[in-house]
Amino acid sequence: MSTEDTPDPREQLMALAEQFYDQFEDGDVPRMQVPTRTKTNIEYDEDKHVWVYGDRTSTRTAKTVSGAEKLLKATYTIDFLLQQIEEGRSSTLRELYYLSESWDLDEAQFGSQDESNSLIEDLEIVSGATREDFHMRPEESGATIMGPLRLREQTRRGEREIHCQKDVGEGGYQIPNNPDTIDFLDNDADFVLCVETGGMRDRLVENGFDEEYNAIVVHLKGQPARATRRITKRLHDELDLPTVVFTDGDPWSYRIYGSVAYGSIKSAHLSEYLATPEADFIGIRPQDIVEYDLPTDPLSDSDINALESELEDPRFQTDFWEEQIELQLDIEKKSEQQSLASRGLDFVTDTYLPERLDEMGVL
Amino acid sequence: MSTEDTPDPREQLMALAEQFYDQFEDGDVPRMQVPTRTKTNIEYDEDKHVWVYGDRTSTRTAKTVSGAEKLLKATYTIDFLLQQIEEGRSSTLRELYYLSESWDLDEAQFGSQDESNSLIEDLEIVSGATREDFHMRPEESGATIMGPLRLREQTRRGEREIHCQKDVGEGGYQIPNNPDTIDFLDNDADFVLCVETGGMRDRLVENGFDEEYNAIVVHLKGQPARATRRITKRLHDELDLPTVVFTDGDPWSYRIYGSVAYGSIKSAHLSEYLATPEADFIGIRPQDIVEYDLPTDPLSDSDINALESELEDPRFQTDFWEEQIELQLDIEKKSEQQSLASRGLDFVTDTYLPERLDEMGVL
Repeated sequence: MSTEDTPDPREQLMALAEQFYDQFEDGDVPRMQVPTRTKTNIEYDEDKHVWVYGDRTSTRTAKTVSGAEKLLKATYTIDFLLQQIEEGRSSTLRELYYLSESWDLDEAQFGSQDESNSLIEDLEIVSGATREDFHMRPEESGATIMGPLRLREQTRRGEREIHCQKDVGEGGYQIPNNPDTIDFLDNDADFVLCVETGGMRDRLVENGFDEEYNAIVVHLKGQPARATRRITKRLHDELDLPTVVFTDGDPWSYRIYGSVAYGSIKSAHLSEYLATPEADFIGIRPQDIVEYDLPTDPLSDSDINALESELEDPRFQTDFWEEQIELQLDIEKKSEQQSLASRGLDFVTDTYLPERLDEMGVL
Repeated sequence: MSTEDTPDPREQLMALAEQFYDQFEDGDVPRMQVPTRTKTNIEYDEDKHVWVYGDRTSTRTAKTVSGAEKLLKATYTIDFLLQQIEEGRSSTLRELYYLSESWDLDEAQFGSQDESNSLIEDLEIVSGATREDFHMRPEESGATIMGPLRLREQTRRGEREIHCQKDVGEGGYQIPNNPDTIDFLDNDADFVLCVETGGMRDRLVENGFDEEYNAIVVHLKGQPARATRRITKRLHDELDLPTVVFTDGDPWSYRIYGSVAYGSIKSAHLSEYLATPEADFIGIRPQDIVEYDLPTDPLSDSDINALESELEDPRFQTDFWEEQIELQLDIEKKSEQQSLASRGLDFVTDTYLPERLDEMGVL
């Protein structure tokens, strides 16, 4: 959220610390209010099509020793984050946990990494900033991009202008941990195609699909990292490009689509930053399994359970998904993206994707 | 193995097919001889310090229906691979499995992906070529490189010259599926540093370690892909650079070091292509846990079992490893790379790595 109309994360963190200071000065017991983060306080926003928190809040207060220690840890962490932002540095969640061992007060040190992770989530929610604004890096970085797009990345070593076809190897452009360091310069793209598996991503690049169809191919690498979801959202919103998601045809892959499009319960406070509700599912649909007579595997018990729980999931309560999931429960089969190779290595790029993109009105 | 003194993989594959043809013509039953691939026929070569096959061989013969079908599948696969190499195309192991459904003879189609994977391994061993020579791509691609190295990658879209600091974003240069498409042009590097975790790789890059110490930082991403091991070997051999491996301090990470340095049982036929026996282990050593007083976790039962089995593993039968593993069993503790952050975010680059590199004679 480092666009110009959002407040400085340093001010937002400082405001939190000042709030504790004022509470002390007024003779109040210091406290911090955060939305209750249980499943019952997370709602699916039918208008925005993403997960958001409900109205219930919890209060962390210094009335108890453990509550006081929580706030102490919060102030030490705010101090560290302010210094880190000031110095233009960054760290991982795991480093923060270990780093607390160097703090002078034993009571301020974290007992487990769950505790420090959870505090950073609290600070994201209360300050309205994101982990990326605090310069906290994930352990696992984003995936890659290949397509007709020129961008400028602000690195610690200066700016880098990179064309995501002409200036990269076959591996593509590696998405940095914080994609908000990127400016999109110019592009010849007609749409964004997010792809689940590396095998299919490589197939599309080898067949020159990104060149022939002016597609920006984003490799999701299974369940996508935050950086991958963030850049997908920015590509869609800022370049005004239709965005489609191409995965295996099984319930776990539908969840990958769901996390790109609608966000996840865990990151409900970040849905507007990470989710792309306009992203459409291109396939593999259960209908494709039938129509293209694809090689299949039988559904396992856990596949069936996952499909049934998707029927109850508000994100999948559309005519499209109900029809597809019921068809899949009926045929009791699933297919992988790469099963399209049973029609030859060019079938996916010559036939399947063009047909689907045409049906969906993208081409 | 696409160096100039190795034979053309097409000729090697064709020779196999010709052998079947000659056997038919001579009225012999067609057959193919491969080294027996059981644990008892894999030996640790004490001179070369890598795993190699022993002398025992098995014969696939068309005397039985199932044996005849195996050879039939081999000829169809050889035909496909020859065509693929001819056309400059490539495919994944999974695509090969699905693709066999399009072959005209039902008996030539693979029953499972294990069957097609295993046939490709047979063909690697018998022909002396590698999967990469056959243009078979892995599902998961290699990791990234950051350092003072300029290279030329031969892509399907022409040559790309890339400097692995100046022409890439903070994510680094993405290693392609087949790193033998790369030529190293020039470099200012003093050594190669392979790093297990993304968090530590990002720390080194953020702290400018690659610039200050002229290090080529290779991200292993846990257990490294073939492409990552291959490029590490090439960096060591062709650029004559000392190579060190930096992982967590636990038995699973010692195995990561082992796969970089000595190869694995599964890829014993490729040890000379993938393994870097000269690579040294920099840490985290159990000795570091004690000397630097690092934050630790207790060893689990499976950690203890893994350490004990490493004591029996010929790869770890050196004074160094016996001493370190026995020390670890004694202190009953393990530490992660990132636990060095308990001494501050710069400790790893200002103190730990320079001290260790100096002790090892690399600096």
